[in-house]
Amino acid sequence: MSQLRVHCLSMSLDGFVAGPDQSLEEPLGVGGEGLHGWMFQTRTWHEIVGEPGGTEAVDDGFMARGFESIGATVMGRNMFGPVRGPWAPVAGEEWRGWWGPEPPYHHPVFVLTHHPHDPIEMAGGTTFFFVTDGIESALDQARTAAGAKDLRLGGGAATVRQYLRAGAIDDLHYAIAPVLLGAGERLFDDDLGDATERYECVEMTAGEGATHVRLAPRR
Amino acid sequence: MSQLRVHCLSMSLDGFVAGPDQSLEEPLGVGGEGLHGWMFQTRTWHEIVGEPGGTEAVDDGFMARGFESIGATVMGRNMFGPVRGPWAPVAGEEWRGWWGPEPPYHHPVFVLTHHPHDPIEMAGGTTFFFVTDGIESALDQARTAAGAKDLRLGGGAATVRQYLRAGAIDDLHYAIAPVLLGAGERLFDDDLGDATERYECVEMTAGEGATHVRLAPRR
Repeated sequence: MSQLRVHCLSMSLDGFVAGPDQSLEEPLGVGGEGLHGWMFQTRTWHEIVGEPGGTEAVDDGFMARGFESIGATVMGRNMFGPVRGPWAPVAGEEWRGWWGPEPPYHHPVFVLTHHPHDPIEMAGGTTFFFVTDGIESALDQARTAAGAKDLRLGGGAATVRQYLRAGAIDDLHYAIAPVLLGAGERLFDDDLGDATERYECVEMTAGEGATHVRLAPRR
Repeated sequence: MSQLRVHCLSMSLDGFVAGPDQSLEEPLGVGGEGLHGWMFQTRTWHEIVGEPGGTEAVDDGFMARGFESIGATVMGRNMFGPVRGPWAPVAGEEWRGWWGPEPPYHHPVFVLTHHPHDPIEMAGGTTFFFVTDGIESALDQARTAAGAKDLRLGGGAATVRQYLRAGAIDDLHYAIAPVLLGAGERLFDDDLGDATERYECVEMTAGEGATHVRLAPRR
């Protein structure tokens, strides 16, 4: 069966994977950009944003792996955009994600939300589908869409924690960035209960700009 | 002025520096031993416990640094022992620390407590002094005792957080161990307020069994 994989969740030394107070101007929360410094150096990132250059070492390897053999993405609504509550225009226009007219997914993306919304078809093969009946349903729909390929689970932290509690994540990569945030959203928050007991660390590798950790279900 | 240094605080991937439910049988809390696996491999640890062997690479370097030019130690009461509330015998005897008749300090150790206790002189140059009038007083007394040397701050986590809030720590080394604890005491707990804003990461280095991080006051 296709695996559910998390890639490149960036975590501060004090445990936060996003800064506080996400907004249109600060999609990653206040200070959240600093978490991703290691990522912005990589060749894979440069390719995504259409720039030449970038490093091709350890960090880039982890970055690139996040795009290998992925047939669908599942994400929380906070990763899709800044709108909370019922859907509403942002700056007078329908919100269509943070990523411009051609998002870097190129496959179906399932957005978890409590508020129904018609699918949004973007250029380059990305279609955003909105799932209102829970994380299992989103996973089922994504599996069907991905065929033989794997699924990538995006953020935010609350979404990852939900799937961790459900024991549904097969591979969780996060990168510890050498920054302190002071506040924000924790990945390992108290609501995980005993979920972490079912996981173990299968890799801890130093990169150029971050330390990479991979968790997987205990064997 | 002599510096206040933290060395070898071991942290789980989920941010805990001790397991829950510390007791006589589990001085580091349930699961806490696993945090220190990297440490037990080092030559410096082997020397402390009087055994031959041990690794002499990155982990050992961090371990050894914790004993260089230290003239006094400050620690919280939970690091000193399992007794809570008023002092009381443990298994019929006065509690004299976890470390046997000759503790590995060989200098004055100042134990923070709310309950007065006479000093305890141990073999090998270690004397435990009990400080009931707060963290500043303990620091002053330790500075006087240390002379030109530095001070080492031990745990537990609550004690380190108190000194972090006071901005009194000059160098904080912790080691991220590749284990998940699921519960326990956090170093970066919510009561730190904006203390972490006054610190920055000055080093992140991969060791053989842990990833080492050093924080210092922002310049």
